[in-house]
Amino acid sequence: MGIPTDIEIASAASLRPPVEIAGRLGIPPQFVEPYGRSVAKIDLACLTAPGQPTQQRAKYVVISAVTPTPLGEGKTTTAVGLADGLARIGRNVAVTLRQPSMGPTFGIKGGAAGGGYSQVVPMDKLNLHLTGDFHAITAAHNLLAAIVDNHLHHGNQLQIDPHNITWRRVLDVNDRALRNLVVGLGSKVDGVPRQSGFDITAASEVMVLLSLATSLEDLRERLRRIVIGYSYAGRPITADDLGAAGAMAVILQDALNPNLLQTLEGTPALIHCGPFGNIATGNSSIVADLVATRRADIVLTEAGFGADMGCERFMNVKCRVSGLRPDAAVLVVTIRALKTHSGRFDVKAGKPLPPEMLEENPDDVRAGLPNLIKHIEIVNTFGVSPVVAINAFPSDHASEHQVVIDAAERLGIDVAVTRHVAEGGAGAEALAEALLKALDRPTNFRFTYELDAPLVDKIDAVARKVYGAEGIDVLPAAASALAAYEKLGFGALPVVIAKTHLSVSSDPKLLGAPTGWRLPVREVRAAAGAGYVYAICGEMRTMPGLSSHPNAERIDLTPDGAIIGLS
Amino acid sequence: MGIPTDIEIASAASLRPPVEIAGRLGIPPQFVEPYGRSVAKIDLACLTAPGQPTQQRAKYVVISAVTPTPLGEGKTTTAVGLADGLARIGRNVAVTLRQPSMGPTFGIKGGAAGGGYSQVVPMDKLNLHLTGDFHAITAAHNLLAAIVDNHLHHGNQLQIDPHNITWRRVLDVNDRALRNLVVGLGSKVDGVPRQSGFDITAASEVMVLLSLATSLEDLRERLRRIVIGYSYAGRPITADDLGAAGAMAVILQDALNPNLLQTLEGTPALIHCGPFGNIATGNSSIVADLVATRRADIVLTEAGFGADMGCERFMNVKCRVSGLRPDAAVLVVTIRALKTHSGRFDVKAGKPLPPEMLEENPDDVRAGLPNLIKHIEIVNTFGVSPVVAINAFPSDHASEHQVVIDAAERLGIDVAVTRHVAEGGAGAEALAEALLKALDRPTNFRFTYELDAPLVDKIDAVARKVYGAEGIDVLPAAASALAAYEKLGFGALPVVIAKTHLSVSSDPKLLGAPTGWRLPVREVRAAAGAGYVYAICGEMRTMPGLSSHPNAERIDLTPDGAIIGLS
Repeated sequence: MGIPTDIEIASAASLRPPVEIAGRLGIPPQFVEPYGRSVAKIDLACLTAPGQPTQQRAKYVVISAVTPTPLGEGKTTTAVGLADGLARIGRNVAVTLRQPSMGPTFGIKGGAAGGGYSQVVPMDKLNLHLTGDFHAITAAHNLLAAIVDNHLHHGNQLQIDPHNITWRRVLDVNDRALRNLVVGLGSKVDGVPRQSGFDITAASEVMVLLSLATSLEDLRERLRRIVIGYSYAGRPITADDLGAAGAMAVILQDALNPNLLQTLEGTPALIHCGPFGNIATGNSSIVADLVATRRADIVLTEAGFGADMGCERFMNVKCRVSGLRPDAAVLVVTIRALKTHSGRFDVKAGKPLPPEMLEENPDDVRAGLPNLIKHIEIVNTFGVSPVVAINAFPSDHASEHQVVIDAAERLGIDVAVTRHVAEGGAGAEALAEALLKALDRPTNFRFTYELDAPLVDKIDAVARKVYGAEGIDVLPAAASALAAYEKLGFGALPVVIAKTHLSVSSDPKLLGAPTGWRLPVREVRAAAGAGYVYAICGEMRTMPGLSSHPNAERIDLTPDGAIIGLS
Repeated sequence: MGIPTDIEIASAASLRPPVEIAGRLGIPPQFVEPYGRSVAKIDLACLTAPGQPTQQRAKYVVISAVTPTPLGEGKTTTAVGLADGLARIGRNVAVTLRQPSMGPTFGIKGGAAGGGYSQVVPMDKLNLHLTGDFHAITAAHNLLAAIVDNHLHHGNQLQIDPHNITWRRVLDVNDRALRNLVVGLGSKVDGVPRQSGFDITAASEVMVLLSLATSLEDLRERLRRIVIGYSYAGRPITADDLGAAGAMAVILQDALNPNLLQTLEGTPALIHCGPFGNIATGNSSIVADLVATRRADIVLTEAGFGADMGCERFMNVKCRVSGLRPDAAVLVVTIRALKTHSGRFDVKAGKPLPPEMLEENPDDVRAGLPNLIKHIEIVNTFGVSPVVAINAFPSDHASEHQVVIDAAERLGIDVAVTRHVAEGGAGAEALAEALLKALDRPTNFRFTYELDAPLVDKIDAVARKVYGAEGIDVLPAAASALAAYEKLGFGALPVVIAKTHLSVSSDPKLLGAPTGWRLPVREVRAAAGAGYVYAICGEMRTMPGLSSHPNAERIDLTPDGAIIGLS
């Protein structure tokens, strides 16, 4: 529809110096460390230095969405466009986002910096190394792995059971051949043979640990508590037992400082950490939000997948650790997503849209509404005001938007159509006004569960109260792990449910708002360093593969050094 | 004696802004990209932008040494101290060095930023991620590996022989368990099982390729030529065949820009690339030297190990590619090294020095002189003036220094004692004056061999003319590889001899200046992308391990974020 490509728009942007962007948040230059010309790290000393603000002042808003479909709902573009829209109507605003993983950039996905006129720039840096945080996480994670195998090699004084080592290795690459391997082959000097594997760096416990750390000291303490496996006697072996936590903290020291980028319209964007949304929290870092909420009027932060996924972890895990409390939640929805949730269309990733889906048909939209309503209910369970953002596409029809507007108004929910992809912040002004209205409403924040409940009850609470399951079915292996974790002192940790993001239920095929189902808890694992227990309720892939003709084949440099094929 | 520790000295230093350091070389601010407060990358556009210098103006000096001993000869400290000494007597000088590998920092070695009052700072950044170049190399290398295994998985259209894949994976960590492994285990969706392994990142062909690239375009072309293995029919399979070179170039784009740091006395230090000294060139990047030699009066560059190793590759490989020609070579020697080369002492790494080695004994020094003389002869074969730098230790005796001075003077070689570790640049002024004298001597540069000679003759030429071997013994496997490479068109490449650095010969136990020996060529490999063929003439370890109590156990952060244990 006449909009240039994302990379064309991004390349044409003229970026402001990071010190100027930081200045918009009142961050003094001495806390701004440039990394190249258009990116900076914010020194966390700005949280503790004398004379710097120590209290939250911003309204804090989480950006979530309906259940994802293969079409993409535009949560990142909405977060970015809404930030620009709020800036246009005079609010001092910051947006905090996850850093995209580099590996998948060379697989099938395009860039993950927003899109159209709602992008974070520089988009090439964002999609590649940025300031090297992911690489630092890879290095810290793999140093611990090397120390584990080194311990086995040098006599295994801690009596680590080689069959019960849970710490794998990580790389930020899509490489299926690394999922399962045997290490330590060769001769006696080449280590102890055992089965292991690699995950992608975004799935590293160090990634989510960094995102949940509230300070360098807290980072160091969480690293100490990482459990790499168990002794023959069943005792957890920690990074601290192996003397590795200090070195890991040194490797991660700079990575703990959030990265400052900017939107196309010059709004500050803090990009920091990218934990997986399925097995981990799917939220950007706490420290970025601490920096932003002490300085801006409004802080928008995106949580991964739908409200049942990233938003639930935002509330029950991230906010619990940070102490910050949200004032509103934006739920992004598209007409296409609701039509998909009607169950009337066969939508597949990478395949062209069924043409009949583009026809004007408010009934199809209405048939998908239960999914949106379910996500509104989820937000309501936390005592936070939801705002519905209808992310408009050129192929939408006004009558279809009206179905969503009517539904929201019936529920007393603020709602607006937003056209930020085509129009930038100007297209999001109506949504900005709707959000301001929602921010005037009182909140009554509550967690889904209290920490002192047994782990199994916490899982049950999320399943029933958030997902709407009838209950949970704990398989024997999971039950004995839960019992063991309670005994080992992990019982007071919050929980993360690792399930599909493609349904509110644990069955990816159930669209809309499924009822009458039970959550099967197959397996339970502890991320003791990051600080949660996670229940595995479906197939979780932690190392992607490449397609037969991966995007890497199209990514290249022109003779004058311009990047092509990145989006 | 009484010198504070390296990290104490480095931490106490007050660093100048990178833009100011770049200004000393006349590099305008628009080519200086800050990475944090005290490090910058130099944009290679400064080599081609209108109005910028295009010709070498500097005198170009390679810093080499006698055959290394477990004690360390102080080549890096001498390069740094000499640079500061030259600056003190009014010369505009730059020093170019390799970037140390992070992995071994957590093993047994201390920092690699020089020592005492001759250090490159910030030393913590230098010993850790610096600007992420090593991580970028890891990512580019492993993307190609993933694409190779992906190709096997998706039907192997190129008919790659899985038993003849030479491209392994890399990580910047000491991890012996990764040396030999089986990848692709699991189920049908998890790739094709085959044997493989990891090397440390410094051993990556991408590392040496980056160090030899003369421009972004040249980098792209070298990446295309990387050979990852062979088809069943014996055809080389390249990164270009797999469509991977463009994506690798994109990953490496920023890494090609050299890193600007500074000595404790504010002399510009370009730190860039760190290829292994045994299987690769052991020299820092060409682009850093191109930048420096167009702007400084004098450029000092360190080459790894003794003159037989890094210095020979500097001459025959690096200078051949860059077109730069050296004007002098500094040979660093210590009294301890010569005493060790006497063969009269049993010196072991990590063990205390035999006390009798510290006693005044010019005879022991004299007995070790043949090693120094051999290295002087090696430098002379290239038609370049050597300068002998006696790196003084507090335990040395003047009579012992005199033995070396007398020997050098007998040969008509410039010589000086240098005390830069204890005194900084002031301690190296005598050496600076000696170097200036040598730079006034005429040079008559010549390579050891011409490129159009057969590969086997080039190996033979290095063995005889540089090492002083009586000849080479090519084992059958090596002979057939050499024949195959000539047929495949690799015959015109220069050669690198992968042998021990602990002797001028291929036997690490032969100290001094061994004669009457022959070089056994066991195996030959092509680094077709980097652009050389290497002959393996000994045990080469390309992935170190950790000791039973690695340095990682002592590295930590203090509560206020200071790093301890790094050196």
